[in-house]
Parts: sequence; structure tokens; C-alpha cells
Amino acid sequence: MEVHFAAVDWGTSSFRIWLVDGNGAALAERRSDEGMVHAAETGFERVLETHLAALAAPPALPVVICGMAGSRQGWQEARYLTVPAALSEIVDRAVIVRDARRDIRILPGLAQRDPANPDVMRGEETQLLGGLIDRSPAGLACLPGTHSKWVRLSGGGVTDFSSHMTGELFALLAGTSILRHAVSGAAACDPASAGFVGAVGEGYREPARLSRMLFSLRAAQLLFDAPPTRLYERLSGLLIGGEIAAAASDYGRLDGTRLIASGRLGDLYASAFAALDIAVDVIDADRAVLAGLVIAAGQFWPLPDRRPHFGTMKA
Amino acid sequence: MEVHFAAVDWGTSSFRIWLVDGNGAALAERRSDEGMVHAAETGFERVLETHLAALAAPPALPVVICGMAGSRQGWQEARYLTVPAALSEIVDRAVIVRDARRDIRILPGLAQRDPANPDVMRGEETQLLGGLIDRSPAGLACLPGTHSKWVRLSGGGVTDFSSHMTGELFALLAGTSILRHAVSGAAACDPASAGFVGAVGEGYREPARLSRMLFSLRAAQLLFDAPPTRLYERLSGLLIGGEIAAAASDYGRLDGTRLIASGRLGDLYASAFAALDIAVDVIDADRAVLAGLVIAAGQFWPLPDRRPHFGTMKA
Repeated sequence: MEVHFAAVDWGTSSFRIWLVDGNGAALAERRSDEGMVHAAETGFERVLETHLAALAAPPALPVVICGMAGSRQGWQEARYLTVPAALSEIVDRAVIVRDARRDIRILPGLAQRDPANPDVMRGEETQLLGGLIDRSPAGLACLPGTHSKWVRLSGGGVTDFSSHMTGELFALLAGTSILRHAVSGAAACDPASAGFVGAVGEGYREPARLSRMLFSLRAAQLLFDAPPTRLYERLSGLLIGGEIAAAASDYGRLDGTRLIASGRLGDLYASAFAALDIAVDVIDADRAVLAGLVIAAGQFWPLPDRRPHFGTMKA
Repeated sequence: MEVHFAAVDWGTSSFRIWLVDGNGAALAERRSDEGMVHAAETGFERVLETHLAALAAPPALPVVICGMAGSRQGWQEARYLTVPAALSEIVDRAVIVRDARRDIRILPGLAQRDPANPDVMRGEETQLLGGLIDRSPAGLACLPGTHSKWVRLSGGGVTDFSSHMTGELFALLAGTSILRHAVSGAAACDPASAGFVGAVGEGYREPARLSRMLFSLRAAQLLFDAPPTRLYERLSGLLIGGEIAAAASDYGRLDGTRLIASGRLGDLYASAFAALDIAVDVIDADRAVLAGLVIAAGQFWPLPDRRPHFGTMKA
């Protein structure tokens, strides 16, 4: 089947585009690091059109976008929906990009306008829409990342959520802080390693002592020549264990949480939950975001011979 | 009275030198940012001699140094003493710099060689020696900084201690992370501000939720246009409150803690302890480190007409 629309997940530091057919199946895909930060300098339309041209997309092909392209510093602001909000609302409240050479729609993010717990997300709402459409959208979801999201859902909508700076803290600590000396040259973090799994437990049991446990990584290197890879795994485990402890303090029992994640990060969180004996339901985040974009596109641009569809992606 | 020796506090990113007379009184002082990181490139002796020349110090004037100049990456390694250790041991175990043009001694730091809680300090041990000499060196001490130290003392010695990355986390979060947008243009943190005091309480009561509370600063800016100075004060308060919570979890009641600190940082911690109703005994860290160096010098280079003295500094 031929290409029906393009779907874009436009993050702060990443760009991803798919060409999608009328059944919601991805025909082609490109990834790059031309995220919002990059595109804000070189121009959003230019980045998008360059990728569309590389994929030989037809001139009038419409495009649906989620993520940071809809932020105030993005291409065109798609104002946050305020929670509680039904996931389907993000489709209803998409904005059409003005003065673009094709039909381009950007999905809005979600905002929690609670002065005691203000919070925002952009992109994860589309993962939730796509990842939970076939399941009852109720209960808890964990979406790990630079700013991990924990989301409480009920009746097909988002009740409330919280962001944790786990991924960004990891990057800052491993790359810029005094701990960079301790982890320099470390290979990737093995989700099954004793260093990671043990540290998840420590971070989970004693989250209040995190900043103390962090410095001990440096001391372990100085005093005991602890190997960088082990310290790298411990750093990752302490932070992820701490995040899960914070979620447990907010939400109580975490069993049944939907873990919406992909790749290495998904493996790390799955291993962390297993180490803590918390049963989770793993949903692939890459497929979820595309499925969310396909659902939106099905309402924007239904096939002439069909009713608006809630498409599902081919595995 | 004429100059008897020079005293140097050589940190990672700061350098400070005093000329001291035979009564332990400072006659002159210079400060610069030629810390270990700088001196490791340009040469420790060169940095030291330049400052001594600027102060017109006599060619044979001896010099006592504490801090990072004694680290493995420093001028000459002064190997850590292992705790528990008497504070007086740091004087006994000073190293003499080889091949220097004058008598230069570097005091060692302390190491906690406990595989479950490895830790190190360099410089704070000299503040403890100088700050506690007139008081019974027992109980708890808090020495805030880039890597804040909490130290348990008993019988004139250090029993154990813990380092918290509070200062470094603050610098990374305010300067490099997503939160930099929220605090950009902030003035200095007012220790008496409601933002700081309130956040100390939140960080203290819920230290496990720190990484969640941090991201809410960014959300508060996006959703409520919260002013940068208030968010800056909140960032500082959350981190300091979290550090004190971790210390309370480690040490129990904190009343009677000696707060060894100076300047703005000392004001912030004093305000934080007051907000938490924890009574502390404030000791000026600048005077304490000089007093510690004077004690050491009194043993290395006693005046001919005196017994080795435990000098005290003039206020």
C-alpha cells in the first residue's frame, strides 16, 4: 500500500520520521540528532523537508508531529492540555502549522497546573495514546528518559504525573561532575550486572542518602581502585533505584506498572523492576509513539474508503 | 612581630595564602583561583613563589599547606590518614616537599577505608583541627561546600564521615541542566527568603522525592512564570534540606552540630538549620583553616624562645 502520511517524533535532541501507509504500517524511517535545539537554529521546515526529500515523499504528503516542535521555543506552539485530560483530546487539540507548504499538524503536550506539583510533558502523551490504546488506559505508567515520567491514568485519561530528572542527572554526573574520573572509559551499563542490580536496591531502600552514595563512587575509585564500568553501573543503578523509590512514595504499590521504554534504557528499567520484585508490563516506546501518531493521522486524514481508524502498527 | 611562616589552603579551584607572625596572627593575605586544576598545568612551585614574591616574603620563609596540593594529582602526595584518626596526627604525618627551594610541608587528608562507605577529605581535616582545638572535639561537625562533609568526632579524633555532593549538584543543575533556563538571571540566594526557607523544609521532609521536586522548578517557570530568583532559592533550599535529611538519617539528632562555614554558604546553612529548629554552633571556616595551619606550623617551626605552641588566631 502506498504512503499516506509522514509521522515525526521531534525531541529536544533527536528527530525521527516515518512514512506510513493507509494501514498504519511504517514503510520507511530516518533518524537524526536534529532535535529542537538544532532545528531552532537551522529552521524546522528545512529540517523536515530535507528528510522528506531524502525519503522521496510526495509534495502534498501530510505530516503529523509530536514532541518539542510544539513547545514555545519550537516550530509552532501547541499549547499544553491541562490534566486531568483524556488521551484522545491530544488529537482534537492539535495545531495546524501556519504558512507551511503542506498540511502539518503538531500534537500538544500535557500540563499539570498544580502550584504544589507543577509538571509538563511533550511526546510522552503520544506514547501513552499509542501504547495503551489496546489496553485499558488505567493504572500507572513509567516512561524513562532524560526526564522520566510517571503517569497515573484512569478512564482513558491522565489523572496526574511527575517528572524525575534521572536521565539528565546521570548524564551530568557521569560526564561533567567529579564522578567523571571514576567512570571514565566505562563500557555500557549491563542491566544484569551485580553492580547495577545491587545499586538499584541501595538507591531504592535509602533514596534520602543518594548524594552521599554518589560521592562514595569517587572515593571507591581513589581508595580501592574500583573499576570504572562497575562504578558506572552503580551510578546508573543508584539513580534508577532512587527514582523508583520516589514513585513508590508517591503512588504506593507499583505492581502492574506499564513500562513504556525501548532499547538499552528499557532493559535497565526492566532489570531494576525485576530486582525489586515489582511486576511490570513492558510496552515498546518506539512502537507506542508511532502508534499514537497513526491514531492521530487516522482522524486527520482518513482514507476515502474508510471510517476514521484507530490504526495499529505491524510488529 | 615579624613574619614567621606562610600558610596555604590549596583547594581544587581556589588558592589562599597568609603570612603569619610568631603569635599565629595573619599579617597579609592573598586569594586567587589558581587551585589544583590550574597549578597542575602551570606548576605548583611557580604559583606559590609568585604569591610569596608579591607578598615580599623572605627567601627562606617556610610554608605549610593543606588541601588538594597533597592529592595524587597535586604537588606531592600526602597520603590519607585512615579514620579513626586523631586530629593531631595530620601534623605528625605531614610530608616535606622534595627539591623545593624552601621548607614546605603538606598536611594529609583523611580516608575512610570502609568498602561499604568509602570516603575522603582534603582540607576539612585542617579546619577541624583549627576550629575545634578550643572546644571538646566530640560530636558532629558539618562543613558545607562543593562536597559537604559531615564528620563524627570523639576523643579528639575523627570517627567517621560522609561527603555529600550538594555544592557540585547545585552548580551543575543551576549552570548546565534544563533548570538553567528557570534560574537564569537569578540574583544571589537570600538565606532569609521564603523560597529558600520553605524549600529547605520540603527537601528535609521528603528527600526521596528530590529529583521530582527539581523538575518542578522548570515546570513552575513554564506554567506560572515563577521568577528566577525564587526558583534559584528553591533549588538551593531543596538540596541543602536534602543533605540535612540524609545526615539526620545517618546520625539521628543533629542538635549541637558544629557548623564550620564562612560567608554566604555559612549564612545559608545557618538559616537552614534555624528553619529546621536544629541548634548549631557556628565556627568560621576561614579562621578555622588558618588556625589549623598555625597549629601545624607551631610544631614544625617553634620560635626559639618558646615551647611548641597551639597558636590561636587573633579575631
